[in-house]
Amino acid sequence: IGSNSVETDSQTEWTDVQKKIIPWKNSTPSSDLEMVFQDRAAKLGKSNSRLIVVASLIDKPTNLGGLCRTSEIFGASALVVGSLHYIQDKQFQHLSVSAEQWLPLVEVKPSQLVDYLQQKKTEGYTIIGVEQTAKSFDLTEYCFPEKSLLLLGNEHEGIPANLIHHLDVCVEIPQQGIIRSLNVHVSGALLIWEYTRQQVIKQKQK
Amino acid sequence: IGSNSVETDSQTEWTDVQKKIIPWKNSTPSSDLEMVFQDRAAKLGKSNSRLIVVASLIDKPTNLGGLCRTSEIFGASALVVGSLHYIQDKQFQHLSVSAEQWLPLVEVKPSQLVDYLQQKKTEGYTIIGVEQTAKSFDLTEYCFPEKSLLLLGNEHEGIPANLIHHLDVCVEIPQQGIIRSLNVHVSGALLIWEYTRQQVIKQKQK
Repeated sequence: IGSNSVETDSQTEWTDVQKKIIPWKNSTPSSDLEMVFQDRAAKLGKSNSRLIVVASLIDKPTNLGGLCRTSEIFGASALVVGSLHYIQDKQFQHLSVSAEQWLPLVEVKPSQLVDYLQQKKTEGYTIIGVEQTAKSFDLTEYCFPEKSLLLLGNEHEGIPANLIHHLDVCVEIPQQGIIRSLNVHVSGALLIWEYTRQQVIKQKQK
Repeated sequence: IGSNSVETDSQTEWTDVQKKIIPWKNSTPSSDLEMVFQDRAAKLGKSNSRLIVVASLIDKPTNLGGLCRTSEIFGASALVVGSLHYIQDKQFQHLSVSAEQWLPLVEVKPSQLVDYLQQKKTEGYTIIGVEQTAKSFDLTEYCFPEKSLLLLGNEHEGIPANLIHHLDVCVEIPQQGIIRSLNVHVSGALLIWEYTRQQVIKQKQK
């Protein structure tokens, strides 16, 4: 049953989700995660989002727990974390309010990120870095593709240079205050919202 | 010097701001707060926002600290809190990353909110409750007036019924997950962002 990579948990659904999605490397493209997600979407009776939120570079359990809650609420297809051990953290749990039971979580260590991003590219995802760079798009002007993958940066160092090369695009949030930057959970929430808002508007136009 | 209502602080600018804006009841409409804000806008060389974020119903210092940071970054004209004592809280300070030194903070106790909202109406503000009600506008469809006041609800009880009557409109964030609702800091951040986004687009169209 691959007990090394599968967290044990008394809650059937959660164990079930984890069995299906870990480790990502062994899944054929768009297979296992897709299954879990379609299953959940069917249960919820909601539209299928194709948004993946990658938080592998984030260190703080509070930020990860918050992102878990926010990603679940907006129906992201998965949250990618650097380690599934965060789920056992009290601060994570306090902030996630059990969203991890409903949102597929995938473990991708920072060292595996380049491979992971490459695989997602071959699956048709646009790799979007949330980062301030000279070439970043302003969030008020960026149009999200249906298959979007958001890569969030570390709380202190942002997205490291070696990963910037593997992005399709960078998007930044225009900020006008004296305080330099938003909390990474809030930055992520704004991009998740903006993706969602654009999808809602597109569906209404059909 | 009105030592009962003025927090003492070694940082001149902060003390300065507080002297100008507390208590709100003694200020003539649009006078003191306006002065502080224009002063700050002049310093920053940025456009004058007319967004007031009212967080008097919020209890948790972490949410207030986070909102302080986010409000400052998007150039809100003020953050209204139920008590200025929150500023001394370690959790508040940890999350606000010193944004309270740059953003005007106004103290309005929950019991004073009805009067405060009425006064802001006479100053031309639209009073917007962030709350799920039968008559709420969907955030994807709501167009924010230039003078917008956001009233955020309590973490557990939302906006109490007696205050709902004093709102001009309620706006809700469409949510599709199983977890019922977003964290109040995130909800506030999404409305602050949406206000900002719409203002940016309007300015570009001029």
